[in-house]
Amino acid sequence: MPVEDFKEKLKKVNQFKIDKSDNLVELIKELADTGFNAKRLAKACEIYKEMVEDKDCTKFFGLAGALIPAGMQGVIYDFIKHDFIDILVTTGASLTHDIAETLGFHHLQGEFKIHELNDTNLHENQLNRIYDVFLPNEVYEGIEDFVSDLVIPDNNIPVSSFLKTLGEQLPDNKNSILKICAEKEIPIFCPAFTDSGLALQLGFHHRDLNLNHFKDMLKMVDLAWDAKHAGVCIVGGGVPKNFIFQSLQFCPTSAIYAIQITMDRPEPGGLSGATLEEAISWGKVNEKAKYSTVISDATIALPIILLYLKKSRKPK
Amino acid sequence: MPVEDFKEKLKKVNQFKIDKSDNLVELIKELADTGFNAKRLAKACEIYKEMVEDKDCTKFFGLAGALIPAGMQGVIYDFIKHDFIDILVTTGASLTHDIAETLGFHHLQGEFKIHELNDTNLHENQLNRIYDVFLPNEVYEGIEDFVSDLVIPDNNIPVSSFLKTLGEQLPDNKNSILKICAEKEIPIFCPAFTDSGLALQLGFHHRDLNLNHFKDMLKMVDLAWDAKHAGVCIVGGGVPKNFIFQSLQFCPTSAIYAIQITMDRPEPGGLSGATLEEAISWGKVNEKAKYSTVISDATIALPIILLYLKKSRKPK
Amino acid sequence: MPVEDFKEKLKKVNQFKIDKSDNLVELIKELADTGFNAKRLAKACEIYKEMVEDKDCTKFFGLAGALIPAGMQGVIYDFIKHDFIDILVTTGASLTHDIAETLGFHHLQGEFKIHELNDTNLHENQLNRIYDVFLPNEVYEGIEDFVSDLVIPDNNIPVSSFLKTLGEQLPDNKNSILKICAEKEIPIFCPAFTDSGLALQLGFHHRDLNLNHFKDMLKMVDLAWDAKHAGVCIVGGGVPKNFIFQSLQFCPTSAIYAIQITMDRPEPGGLSGATLEEAISWGKVNEKAKYSTVISDATIALPIILLYLKKSRKPK
Amino acid sequence: MPVEDFKEKLKKVNQFKIDKSDNLVELIKELADTGFNAKRLAKACEIYKEMVEDKDCTKFFGLAGALIPAGMQGVIYDFIKHDFIDILVTTGASLTHDIAETLGFHHLQGEFKIHELNDTNLHENQLNRIYDVFLPNEVYEGIEDFVSDLVIPDNNIPVSSFLKTLGEQLPDNKNSILKICAEKEIPIFCPAFTDSGLALQLGFHHRDLNLNHFKDMLKMVDLAWDAKHAGVCIVGGGVPKNFIFQSLQFCPTSAIYAIQITMDRPEPGGLSGATLEEAISWGKVNEKAKYSTVISDATIALPIILLYLKKSRKPK
Repeated sequence: MPVEDFKEKLKKVNQFKIDKSDNLVELIKELADTGFNAKRLAKACEIYKEMVEDKDCTKFFGLAGALIPAGMQGVIYDFIKHDFIDILVTTGASLTHDIAETLGFHHLQGEFKIHELNDTNLHENQLNRIYDVFLPNEVYEGIEDFVSDLVIPDNNIPVSSFLKTLGEQLPDNKNSILKICAEKEIPIFCPAFTDSGLALQLGFHHRDLNLNHFKDMLKMVDLAWDAKHAGVCIVGGGVPKNFIFQSLQFCPTSAIYAIQITMDRPEPGGLSGATLEEAISWGKVNEKAKYSTVISDATIALPIILLYLKKSRKPK
Repeated sequence: MPVEDFKEKLKKVNQFKIDKSDNLVELIKELADTGFNAKRLAKACEIYKEMVEDKDCTKFFGLAGALIPAGMQGVIYDFIKHDFIDILVTTGASLTHDIAETLGFHHLQGEFKIHELNDTNLHENQLNRIYDVFLPNEVYEGIEDFVSDLVIPDNNIPVSSFLKTLGEQLPDNKNSILKICAEKEIPIFCPAFTDSGLALQLGFHHRDLNLNHFKDMLKMVDLAWDAKHAGVCIVGGGVPKNFIFQSLQFCPTSAIYAIQITMDRPEPGGLSGATLEEAISWGKVNEKAKYSTVISDATIALPIILLYLKKSRKPK
Repeated sequence: MPVEDFKEKLKKVNQFKIDKSDNLVELIKELADTGFNAKRLAKACEIYKEMVEDKDCTKFFGLAGALIPAGMQGVIYDFIKHDFIDILVTTGASLTHDIAETLGFHHLQGEFKIHELNDTNLHENQLNRIYDVFLPNEVYEGIEDFVSDLVIPDNNIPVSSFLKTLGEQLPDNKNSILKICAEKEIPIFCPAFTDSGLALQLGFHHRDLNLNHFKDMLKMVDLAWDAKHAGVCIVGGGVPKNFIFQSLQFCPTSAIYAIQITMDRPEPGGLSGATLEEAISWGKVNEKAKYSTVISDATIALPIILLYLKKSRKPK
Repeated sequence: MPVEDFKEKLKKVNQFKIDKSDNLVELIKELADTGFNAKRLAKACEIYKEMVEDKDCTKFFGLAGALIPAGMQGVIYDFIKHDFIDILVTTGASLTHDIAETLGFHHLQGEFKIHELNDTNLHENQLNRIYDVFLPNEVYEGIEDFVSDLVIPDNNIPVSSFLKTLGEQLPDNKNSILKICAEKEIPIFCPAFTDSGLALQLGFHHRDLNLNHFKDMLKMVDLAWDAKHAGVCIVGGGVPKNFIFQSLQFCPTSAIYAIQITMDRPEPGGLSGATLEEAISWGKVNEKAKYSTVISDATIALPIILLYLKKSRKPK
C-alpha cells in the first residue's frame, strides 16, 4: 500500500465519553474508532448487523466451548430465533448440555475460592466440574432415560437429520437449541458427534446405530456452494471452525463476512487461534471480506453482540 | 469445606434471556449467576459498586497498558471525575499519552490488513505503532515544547508532587487525567517514571532534575496504613499492580475489595497474571475480601464497568 | 492438608548450574525441583518415563494441532516406533498432512516479516498458510491421486479400520505415522474424520463411502475398560483430548498417569485448556494419578520429551 | 515482496529425526527449519550466538518475572559470567530475590494439588506464594538485617551505582547476580526500584535515602548512543523491555539483534506482548535486524539458550 493511501485512511482515535444513557448500542458505535479489542468487538457487531441485513447471506455459525454450562443457552437460542443463524455447526458436548437443560436439569454454580474446589471430593459427590460450573451425575441419568426411549427413524441417516429427529422428540422449552432448530429447520452439523456423552449413551442403548457422517460433509459443501453470499461467526474455534471453513472453500465467493471470538492465539499454529487473514490464503475467506477477530471470552462478547443486533435491527 | 456446605452454596446456572431493553445494567445482573468470565465481569461490577458505596473505602486504581492510545482516556477521566478512584498508580507511558491528547495531539487508527502494517514504512513516515494505533513523531515534538517550558517548582520533590504541578500547567481539557487529578487532588504515583518518553524529554531539557521516588514509596505506604477500608482495581498488572500491593501489606486490614482485569495468565509466574488469591498469602488482599479477576481486554471491560457504575449509582 | 504436612513437603528451589556437558537428561533432572513450567516439563518427562516402564500401562496419545506442518512428523513417528504410544487419537488434518509428506510432498517455510505474508497474494499463488508454514495446492492434487486410487475394502467399517487399510496402501516411508501404525497395529482413532481435506477427497471420489464412527467409539471404550493401567499424553487438546477422556471414564482405575501440553488457558472454560485436576472430578483421571500440564508450544516440549525418553530408557 | 522472491525463499520444512545422541545443540540446529515456536527458539539461539560472536555488539538484557524464585538464578549468573550480558535491566523484585538466595535463604517448592494451596493458611503460616513457589517471611527478616547494616556511600547517586555498592557488600556466592555484576562492572539498571521489597526496607532503615533515577536514564541513553552494534534479549517484557527500547531509539543503528521470550500476546496492546516488528516502527529495532520472539515460559527457553551458547561457543 502506497504511503499516501495509508495516511489517507488514518483517523483520530475516538476519545469517547459515556455520558448519554445506559445504551449499549451507542457505546458500541463509539468503540468503532478506538483500538485493540474494543474496536474489534465494535467491528464484529457492525459486520454481524450487515450479515443480517444482507438478504442473500447464508449465515454459518460455529459453536465450540462449554457455553451452555456457562449460561449462554438463551443467548444462542435467540440468535437462532431471530434468524441470525442459518446453519449451526457445533460439538456433541454442546448438544448434550442443551438436552440436559431442555429436560429440566441444571448446571450449577456458586461462590468458591480456588482451594475449595477439591476435585477428589467433587468426584466422590458426583459433581463433574467445568471450570467454575458443576454438572451432577444425575443429569446424565436423566439424559439416559431420554436417550433410551428415543425413536431412531432410520439407520445410516446423516447426523444432521438425526439431530432434527432428536429435537422433535424433546419437550417444549423456551431455550432449547435442538428444539428451535428442528422447528425452524435450521440444520445442525456435528462432525465429531461420537465425541460426546450423548453419543456414548446412544451407542450403549442403540447398539446398531450408525450415522452417515460423509453425507453431512457433502451436504455442508453443497450449502456453501449454493450460498450467494456467505458469512461466518466462529465462537471458540475447534472442529466447528474447520468444518465451516473447509466447506467455504467450495463457496464461489468464499466468506465475505467473517467474525471470530476466541481466546486462542495464532503463534502455536493451531486452527482455533489462526487469524481470519490466514483463511484468505486458503480461499475460505474472501480477500475483500469484512472481518474481525475479537480476543474475548465468548460469554462476554456474545451477549453484547446479541443485544446490539436486537436493538439496532430495522423493524420489518 | 464440608461437602454439605459446598452443596448448599450451589445454585442453578442462570440461563438468562436478553429480551427487555437495551440495558446493560440488567444484563450485568443476569450474568452474575452464570459462569466463566461473564460471571467474573458481573462480579467485578458489583464489587466496584460496593467500593464506591463504602464511604470508608480508599480506592486504589492501578493502570498499565496503552489504554489512552486505544481511546480510553475519557473513560479513565470519568472514573476520576465521579470519585471512583482515590489514588492512581500508573506508567510513564500513560502520562505521556495523556499529555499528548491534552495538548491537542491525537493517536491515529484505521482499517488495515496485517500485511499493510509494514513497520519499516511506518518508521520512514514517522508513525510509531502501538498494535493497531499510530502515534506520529510530531506528537512527541509537541510534548517537547510543553516540557521545555515547564516550570519545575523544586528539585527532589516526590514524583507525585511533580505530576500535580505538571497537571496544573496543562491547558483545560475535558479528558485530561493529569489535569483532573491535579484539580481534585487525586495523587498520581508513577514508580517507573523514568521509563517513559515524558521523563526522557524532562531529562534532556532539565538536566539537573531529580525526583524523590522514595518519598512516593513511603507516602503510598502511609496512605495504605491509614485506609480504614482498602479497595483495589488493577488494570493490566505491571508495576502499578505490584506498587499498590506492596503498600497494602501495610494496610491493617489489607484490601477487602479487589478487582483485576488482565489478559495475562498465572502459570508463567509473573505478577501481572498472578491470581488475587495468591495476594492473600502475602497479606495484600484480605482473606475475607470480595474479589474478581476478569480475563478480558481492558478496552472491553472498563467501559462496561464505568457504564454500570454510573447507571447503578444511587443519587446523592 | 494440615499445615505440618504441608510444610514437611516443602523443599528448597534448586538453583542449578548448567556446567557439565551438553546433556538434556541432566538438565531435565535439575529442572524437577525448580518452579513454573520448567518444573512441569521435567515432571512430564518423569511421568512419561514411568508410563513407558510400567508394563501394565496402556498409553493413550491425543494429538491435535498442525504438528506435522511444523516438522514434528519424525518425532511423532519415533514415539510410535519406540512403543511410547499404544493408542493414537488425532485429527483428520494431521492424517492429511501425514499422507502429504509420506507421498513425497512437502510443507514449506522461510524467513519472512509479518507484512510479507500477504494472504491475498498467497491465495493467488496457491500457497495455503498455516501460521508460518505454507502448503502448496499441488500437495492436495497429489493426495487426490492417491485417494482416488485407494481400495476401499468394505463399507461401514470403523474409521480406525479404514485408516489401517489406508496406511497399508501408503508407500514405505521413514516418517509416516499412518504407515508405522498400520505395521505395528497401533489403532488410530479420528472422531472428527469428516472434518478434513482427506475426508473431502474420499467423499468426492467414493460417493457411497460410509464409515461407522459409533463402532470406533465403542471400541475405544472397550480399550479403556480393559486397560490395567491407563496413561495419557494430550498434545494441544481438542477432540482427541475429549475422546480419550470420555473413554477413560470407563477405565476401572481412570488414568493413573496424565500429561498435557497446551497453550490454552482454563478460565474461558473450554476443554482444551481445562486442568487435569478438573478431569479428576469426572473420574477421567485418578485422584492419585501423577500428572503434569506443561504450558508450552508442543513443538518445543515434544522433542525434549522424546529425547529424554530415548536417552533415559533402560536397555532392554 | 514480488511473488518470485517470496517463492525463492521457500524451503522444505525439516522433518527431522532425533537419533544421534543426547545433544541439544544438534536438536536446535534441526529445529531451525521447522515451524511455529520450535523454529523461533532455534532462531533465538542462533541470533544470540551471533550477538556473542560480534565483538562490536553491546548486549542489553531485560529481565522481568520471578525467575529466581523459579530456580533460574544460576542460569542468569552464567549469562553474566560468560559475557553474554553487557547491561542488565531488571526489576526490584528480582534484586530482592537475588539478595535472599545470596544471603543463604531459600525459595521453597513441593508437590501440591491446586486445592492444597490455601492462601489463607499460607498467610497464617507466613509463606508468601509466587505461583508454585513459596517465600517464607523469615527471608524478608534476613534481608532486613542486611539492609539495615548496609553502608550507603552517598545520597543522590544513580540506582545503578547504588546497586554496585550493594553487590560489593554481599557475601561471596556462586550464584549471586548482584555480586558478579559488581565484580565484572556490568551495570544493573532498575527503573522501578522503589517498587520492591528491597526498596521498602531501604526506605524504612535509611529514611533520607534518595537515588537519582534520571541519571540512570541518561546514562542508559549514552550507553545506547555509544553502542556500535546493539543487541537485546528481553525476558518477560515489563519495564525492563521498555527501558531498553526507549534508550535504543538513541542508538545510531537501533538494535540489529533482538530476541524476546514472553507468554504475553500482542492483541491487548501492552508493550510486554508487542512484536519486535512493532519496535521497528519506533526506530528501536533496525529494519534489517535479525530478530525472534519465542512464545515460551522463560524457565524453559532460557536454560536451553544458555546450554546452546555454552556448547556452540568457539574456544577463545
